[in-house]
Amino acid sequence: MKKNIEPCYYGDYLHLDKVLGAQELQSEKYGDAAHEEMLFIIVHQVYELWFKQVLHELNAVIDTFNQETVKDQQLTSVVHRLQRVIQIQKLMNDQIAIMETMTPQQFLSFRDYLVPASGFQSIQFKRLEIALGLKRDFRIDFDKQSFYNRLTDKDRALLENLESKPSLFELVDNWLSRMPLLKTEEFDFWQYYKKAADEMLDDDHQTISSNDMLSENEMRQELKELQATKENFDALFDEAKFENLRNESKFRLSHKALLSALFIKQYSEEPIFNLPFQLITALTEIDEQLTIWRYRHAMMVQRMLGTKIGTGGSSGHHYLKKTTESNRIYLDFFNMATFLLPKSALPELPEIVRRRLGFYLQ
Amino acid sequence: MKKNIEPCYYGDYLHLDKVLGAQELQSEKYGDAAHEEMLFIIVHQVYELWFKQVLHELNAVIDTFNQETVKDQQLTSVVHRLQRVIQIQKLMNDQIAIMETMTPQQFLSFRDYLVPASGFQSIQFKRLEIALGLKRDFRIDFDKQSFYNRLTDKDRALLENLESKPSLFELVDNWLSRMPLLKTEEFDFWQYYKKAADEMLDDDHQTISSNDMLSENEMRQELKELQATKENFDALFDEAKFENLRNESKFRLSHKALLSALFIKQYSEEPIFNLPFQLITALTEIDEQLTIWRYRHAMMVQRMLGTKIGTGGSSGHHYLKKTTESNRIYLDFFNMATFLLPKSALPELPEIVRRRLGFYLQ
Amino acid sequence: MKKNIEPCYYGDYLHLDKVLGAQELQSEKYGDAAHEEMLFIIVHQVYELWFKQVLHELNAVIDTFNQETVKDQQLTSVVHRLQRVIQIQKLMNDQIAIMETMTPQQFLSFRDYLVPASGFQSIQFKRLEIALGLKRDFRIDFDKQSFYNRLTDKDRALLENLESKPSLFELVDNWLSRMPLLKTEEFDFWQYYKKAADEMLDDDHQTISSNDMLSENEMRQELKELQATKENFDALFDEAKFENLRNESKFRLSHKALLSALFIKQYSEEPIFNLPFQLITALTEIDEQLTIWRYRHAMMVQRMLGTKIGTGGSSGHHYLKKTTESNRIYLDFFNMATFLLPKSALPELPEIVRRRLGFYLQ
Amino acid sequence: MKKNIEPCYYGDYLHLDKVLGAQELQSEKYGDAAHEEMLFIIVHQVYELWFKQVLHELNAVIDTFNQETVKDQQLTSVVHRLQRVIQIQKLMNDQIAIMETMTPQQFLSFRDYLVPASGFQSIQFKRLEIALGLKRDFRIDFDKQSFYNRLTDKDRALLENLESKPSLFELVDNWLSRMPLLKTEEFDFWQYYKKAADEMLDDDHQTISSNDMLSENEMRQELKELQATKENFDALFDEAKFENLRNESKFRLSHKALLSALFIKQYSEEPIFNLPFQLITALTEIDEQLTIWRYRHAMMVQRMLGTKIGTGGSSGHHYLKKTTESNRIYLDFFNMATFLLPKSALPELPEIVRRRLGFYLQ
Repeated sequence: MKKNIEPCYYGDYLHLDKVLGAQELQSEKYGDAAHEEMLFIIVHQVYELWFKQVLHELNAVIDTFNQETVKDQQLTSVVHRLQRVIQIQKLMNDQIAIMETMTPQQFLSFRDYLVPASGFQSIQFKRLEIALGLKRDFRIDFDKQSFYNRLTDKDRALLENLESKPSLFELVDNWLSRMPLLKTEEFDFWQYYKKAADEMLDDDHQTISSNDMLSENEMRQELKELQATKENFDALFDEAKFENLRNESKFRLSHKALLSALFIKQYSEEPIFNLPFQLITALTEIDEQLTIWRYRHAMMVQRMLGTKIGTGGSSGHHYLKKTTESNRIYLDFFNMATFLLPKSALPELPEIVRRRLGFYLQ
Repeated sequence: MKKNIEPCYYGDYLHLDKVLGAQELQSEKYGDAAHEEMLFIIVHQVYELWFKQVLHELNAVIDTFNQETVKDQQLTSVVHRLQRVIQIQKLMNDQIAIMETMTPQQFLSFRDYLVPASGFQSIQFKRLEIALGLKRDFRIDFDKQSFYNRLTDKDRALLENLESKPSLFELVDNWLSRMPLLKTEEFDFWQYYKKAADEMLDDDHQTISSNDMLSENEMRQELKELQATKENFDALFDEAKFENLRNESKFRLSHKALLSALFIKQYSEEPIFNLPFQLITALTEIDEQLTIWRYRHAMMVQRMLGTKIGTGGSSGHHYLKKTTESNRIYLDFFNMATFLLPKSALPELPEIVRRRLGFYLQ
Repeated sequence: MKKNIEPCYYGDYLHLDKVLGAQELQSEKYGDAAHEEMLFIIVHQVYELWFKQVLHELNAVIDTFNQETVKDQQLTSVVHRLQRVIQIQKLMNDQIAIMETMTPQQFLSFRDYLVPASGFQSIQFKRLEIALGLKRDFRIDFDKQSFYNRLTDKDRALLENLESKPSLFELVDNWLSRMPLLKTEEFDFWQYYKKAADEMLDDDHQTISSNDMLSENEMRQELKELQATKENFDALFDEAKFENLRNESKFRLSHKALLSALFIKQYSEEPIFNLPFQLITALTEIDEQLTIWRYRHAMMVQRMLGTKIGTGGSSGHHYLKKTTESNRIYLDFFNMATFLLPKSALPELPEIVRRRLGFYLQ
Repeated sequence: MKKNIEPCYYGDYLHLDKVLGAQELQSEKYGDAAHEEMLFIIVHQVYELWFKQVLHELNAVIDTFNQETVKDQQLTSVVHRLQRVIQIQKLMNDQIAIMETMTPQQFLSFRDYLVPASGFQSIQFKRLEIALGLKRDFRIDFDKQSFYNRLTDKDRALLENLESKPSLFELVDNWLSRMPLLKTEEFDFWQYYKKAADEMLDDDHQTISSNDMLSENEMRQELKELQATKENFDALFDEAKFENLRNESKFRLSHKALLSALFIKQYSEEPIFNLPFQLITALTEIDEQLTIWRYRHAMMVQRMLGTKIGTGGSSGHHYLKKTTESNRIYLDFFNMATFLLPKSALPELPEIVRRRLGFYLQ
């Protein structure tokens, strides 16, 4: 088996000549080497290497979901890969602390040489966003603009091609929509659910009304929000209402997918839901880590530049902060707690359903 | 020396009977023990212990700055203690991941028993905010309200008393204002500085104007912001203008303190500025870590509750997110990069000044 | 439902009077308050709170495994709880950085007041070790000794009682041994496995022999270790040999449990093995995190004391370092890679087996 | 000023064609692409990028200490750069968690293609060790061997050349030895110190003798170690004795450097010692983080391979574990707590000395 395998040398295997030969200081080129430009370059190169790895994982996951049926064994891989993505994201978030060892003044010593380069030009980061499901329509205006203006033709074409393909969000939505489990029992289960939800919301109404720490204004506000939650619940049980809210961007998941996800979350301890639950949790976590990254990144840029403009010729941290909340992708999973009921309020599943959620051997 | 010291036993020394006897599950009391309520209690108790430690450090630092003169040796302690606070904050931020191992459904199994308790009732956290400088006037409305309505009379009186004393922010502002260094050289230095700043801003104007990736709207916006930056710079050199902006809450530091801080940041490598620079950096970092904590905390609450109301009878995560940006205390330090110039644009300090920034032995 | 629930106040609910009233500085008592003793106390109290939480999780897991059959739904909880333990362990490891903000000199200012208290007297830590499976016989000599000499009678009795009950290690071993899956196919599978393993070991023999970077001595050493690995493999297929090695403490798991664990690891992507695989991985991780904790803790003590004796009257870091390697509990899981074969070397499972590893619906 | 600066494009600036084109899977080359080989390559490439950054910082620090005099302003940079190294080390330690998302079985699917490459062939890591002060004589045997056998001629020559130059350890030792402060007051101070140390050791003797939790054996052992500590103290005050112990490798620092470092640690709050104290602390921390890295790295290799041999044809984790303790460089700083006395036992410094430790303005 090991025949014909050529001996491998560490440095050659890793192509260290390329990797370690790719740090070219602009400040040096213009005769004024700035010590910290090395850090600036290496930090960005490390990010790009991690982006490549994250894309490697996401694309493999997308390939799996692009098949007609996803085998149970493949779901193990999918979850494993997404959990690896999360580990990498956590490290990338911590890596911001390293960039913050550079003082604003040190950055100023080479900032002018980098104009008009900008982190907005990272193709891999945009690919990563698109793969997860952040297509153009969901971006904030500045972000949309930057797709057209800041990229080379080739890069733009590449991204536009990617946007024409189904993203992980869409594939997972489809996969959830196809889940057969709800069909048979649908009627009874969601009836029961509606009743339990109504009781919970009535309790909440009472809690707010009797909260004498709220000012009149605040109470009005709270009750208004409770009313919105009630309407969301109504939409849960009424597809037409749901589609209306979805058109107003209150939801992004399809109605069926949302119901499947909710069912999985409510009964996550059932064997057959174990991996789907981990999948949903992983996607929620990926979205949360990405949000933390955007937030910390925006703070770091602000600390480095104050209200000065960045190398790209714009005051980056404003745009970055805006994207923090608006560029959420899996927000429906994140907000799903809205619809969850306590275990004690849930119906016992009939034996016949239960059995279908278990293993062959039971 | 060791005479008369009674033998010490680990458990007694740490009063473990008290500490480990303080977990009383409400769900158990009402006959329905919820496994995760233990986690909920312990996570909060650990936070309170860390708050106590942070207050221990902050109060010691405040005591030091309350003296008429702060000795150089004491500044070492001050910086050391603030850096310890940062370490604790980082751990507290990571601790959110532990709370996130509780699923929304697990939380729902005991949420109802906790009404109307709320994290807004943590006296130590409010003390910590007040000690750092977040007095009532700087809080957002909801937060102001909660001071009056949600606390016992005793707790409210305690906090109001604290608010009447100088906070760390005010003490550091005073200390910076008293720094003698600027007096003699003031005129020349800041003249030079103004000229260099003007050149930098003109360059930035050109960078924006020739940035063909900006839409017309964006360019207008960018130039407007540049204009604001210019006005901030003007205020730097004109105390009256500065006071106007300060009255509009554009600055919180006094004019003299801001100039001192800026001078320290520009010449941080001079021995005499080493500790002051570390002090400013530590306060900036404390503010940043607190902001990260607020942000991650708000996200965690949202993930746990969705748009449901919390135990305190309000949709907590809205208020929490609002405080993230508005409750910043040392924002002037954070934004100081606005006014920093690259080393190459700074004047050589005259020998006589330089000498005064060094050690006795030189 | 919410009737009859008394209103809850944050500070009362958390018993903050007890928790925040439990910091009594010995140095203050003897008239010489040391600022850092507060940190020392609080760091230890936080550890004890986490230990309580870890015990809460471990005991729940032990209860589950003490039942005659473990339901699939319960396994979800078990894994979830063990993963929470790991999160807590990671935080505890990072917490060492906070203790390290105390300088040796600061520690010396109150060390003498604590004699002869010692971290070896933490009952909860010993309970945690015992619950995981570190009973007396597995401890190093010093550690054994400290069970008898350093504790109160009551504490000792408590621990001895715990040692008489089955630990998590033993329960998991039993549970793995009971797994029915191997029975039917046993013969064929392990035959095939043996053959594949022999080929792999022959390849390794060749790799070592042709490694001209090894000195003669080293090559002899390497081949000796390969021989030991071969003997371990032989024992895998021969229960009598296995028992011999187990008596020499080369293994701790029973033969059947080890084979089950190995099978699970080899086919972890099969649905029915998903949770068992996560269980094994979690126990491995708990052991690894505990080892990292011991190691970093030993280093911290050394840095704080050098070769000075600790408050317990012994040079703690020596003992601590010794326990790092010797007090491993789930080492068999950790070393299991020894016996793993690449996917490509494994047999295709017969359809009938495969089916039995899947869901009812397939 | 910005004239003549060519526009900069993100991807070109970072040479992403090189960096992202450097992942060539061996498994793919041999027709059998293994998904996880990408992770393996990228993790190692990221490590190499960080090594490059660490070397960039260490070399700049070495350049500074290679000058005849180190200016106070330069010391600020030195400390800043070493603290950046520590931040990078912490991230590298956390990065091990990412490698651990690869299962042993996944690694086995491409292990055979990498023979005989080995992490021992990382030139940058060896350069980093040498720069810090780990020259050949201090290495364990296996490690020494690997310098000769596993490298290309060019690489070996490069390292041997580096070994002929002064390392950071030697330069810092020289710099400490040159510190003038001790000269004048030496006699009195160290006399006083000796007396205080003797008292402390007598107290410790009593603590051990009256520790009835120690067995006879243990007490003998403890007293023996106390005796060794006493002898170390004697050597502190007697250069000849010190040199003897140094020849036995009990110390690595020169006598004068050790005394200077001790003085700095005892009086670290004096302004002039602030940066030197931070320097010593940073080097201690770098050594500790490197040790943690070695330890966790060894554990990771063991978990991945068990007792199997690695790609380099040897059972890597044995060697790795050995290096953990033996390859310590700044152990004298780490163990310095041995010689520290509590503040209360130290002499008041005479006013004339004190003054010389302060600023010009005081």
